[in-house]
Amino acid sequence: MIWRKEDIVKLEKRYRAAFINSINGFKSANLIGTRGIEVNTNLSIVSSLIHLGSNPALLGLVFRPDSVERHTLENIRSTGFFTANHVHAELIDRAHQTSANYPKDVSEFDACGIKLEYIENFFAPFVKESKIKIGLQFEEEHKLMNDTVLVVGSVHLVEFPDNALLQDGFLDIEFAETAAISGLDSYHTTKSLRRLSYATTDKDPVVIQSAPSA
Amino acid sequence: MIWRKEDIVKLEKRYRAAFINSINGFKSANLIGTRGIEVNTNLSIVSSLIHLGSNPALLGLVFRPDSVERHTLENIRSTGFFTANHVHAELIDRAHQTSANYPKDVSEFDACGIKLEYIENFFAPFVKESKIKIGLQFEEEHKLMNDTVLVVGSVHLVEFPDNALLQDGFLDIEFAETAAISGLDSYHTTKSLRRLSYATTDKDPVVIQSAPSA
Repeated sequence: MIWRKEDIVKLEKRYRAAFINSINGFKSANLIGTRGIEVNTNLSIVSSLIHLGSNPALLGLVFRPDSVERHTLENIRSTGFFTANHVHAELIDRAHQTSANYPKDVSEFDACGIKLEYIENFFAPFVKESKIKIGLQFEEEHKLMNDTVLVVGSVHLVEFPDNALLQDGFLDIEFAETAAISGLDSYHTTKSLRRLSYATTDKDPVVIQSAPSA
Repeated sequence: MIWRKEDIVKLEKRYRAAFINSINGFKSANLIGTRGIEVNTNLSIVSSLIHLGSNPALLGLVFRPDSVERHTLENIRSTGFFTANHVHAELIDRAHQTSANYPKDVSEFDACGIKLEYIENFFAPFVKESKIKIGLQFEEEHKLMNDTVLVVGSVHLVEFPDNALLQDGFLDIEFAETAAISGLDSYHTTKSLRRLSYATTDKDPVVIQSAPSA
């Protein structure tokens, strides 16, 4: 089936959101932890955490203008710090519940039964049971044409399971049971197919390593 | 294990790239098709295609400054059009090979054995065997602090398998066998856990639908 721009514009709003949110492919599943200047904490599931660079290590996070994640964005702007915490299968139901529109003075850590921890005096709170946790500092933001905001953060610390780190630096997030998201509300586990060697024009790629979880 | 900013800076370059590219979570797997003003075509695998908005329908694509995808970026800038084509298991080896640094006058469609097709006079070429294909028009670009470029494109057409579309607009990309990427070179299939209802503060989320592929 082919849908054109003029077909997509006519779709019912929630139907269109479900469809368009599905088309780019699989997305990351992270809980973003923040703390306000008045000490209240906030936790929000996002599928928009992206890689932007390795040196310096930078990640990006996209915020819709009308999003319930606005408390998170306010906290990032006012304090300069946030955390990203991988969501694994056991966390999915509670992580999804953080997308409900709780009042600003309610912490989703409490409301959704998710334990908070602080690591090494980092300002923003982490999710205790997440297996991969990233502490980030706000660097810059870009307003896009639809009023969506891209926040760029630099990586200040990463906590991860020792045995998920392979010898070439690859962190096996499937071994750490990290989930993937599709659309607005669909959660998936993964099964490794293979890793492929750095591609060069003179040969075909070869399998360099199967993940330990394969 | 905890690695801090000062540890990450000291890592060997390729090791650090493998590590930092792993930490945000799972990523989408798409082949970006473009055509130059002089008719040559280009195809490049990316893990950076992201959702930016549903109305208007906008996707984003991140380009590193030193990337082999620069021919793709040049074509997008000069012609205004590009396509995104989902990568499924059978396509992975050939899709990965498009990341090799071919000269500008070599089409990765030919070099990597991937069949091209044009759909409805759309300017940029699609990947014939992809199950989900998106035609995009360049809208704007943003240069980030590390010289990375975020390209924003509007969705002009989407081709998808009829039976992957569920009744609420969700497109079941797992049913369409779309792959996920982790790190720089790891390819994964997925297994649906569940879809969860829109979260509200007065109740826990419930399973609204299991994907047909579950």
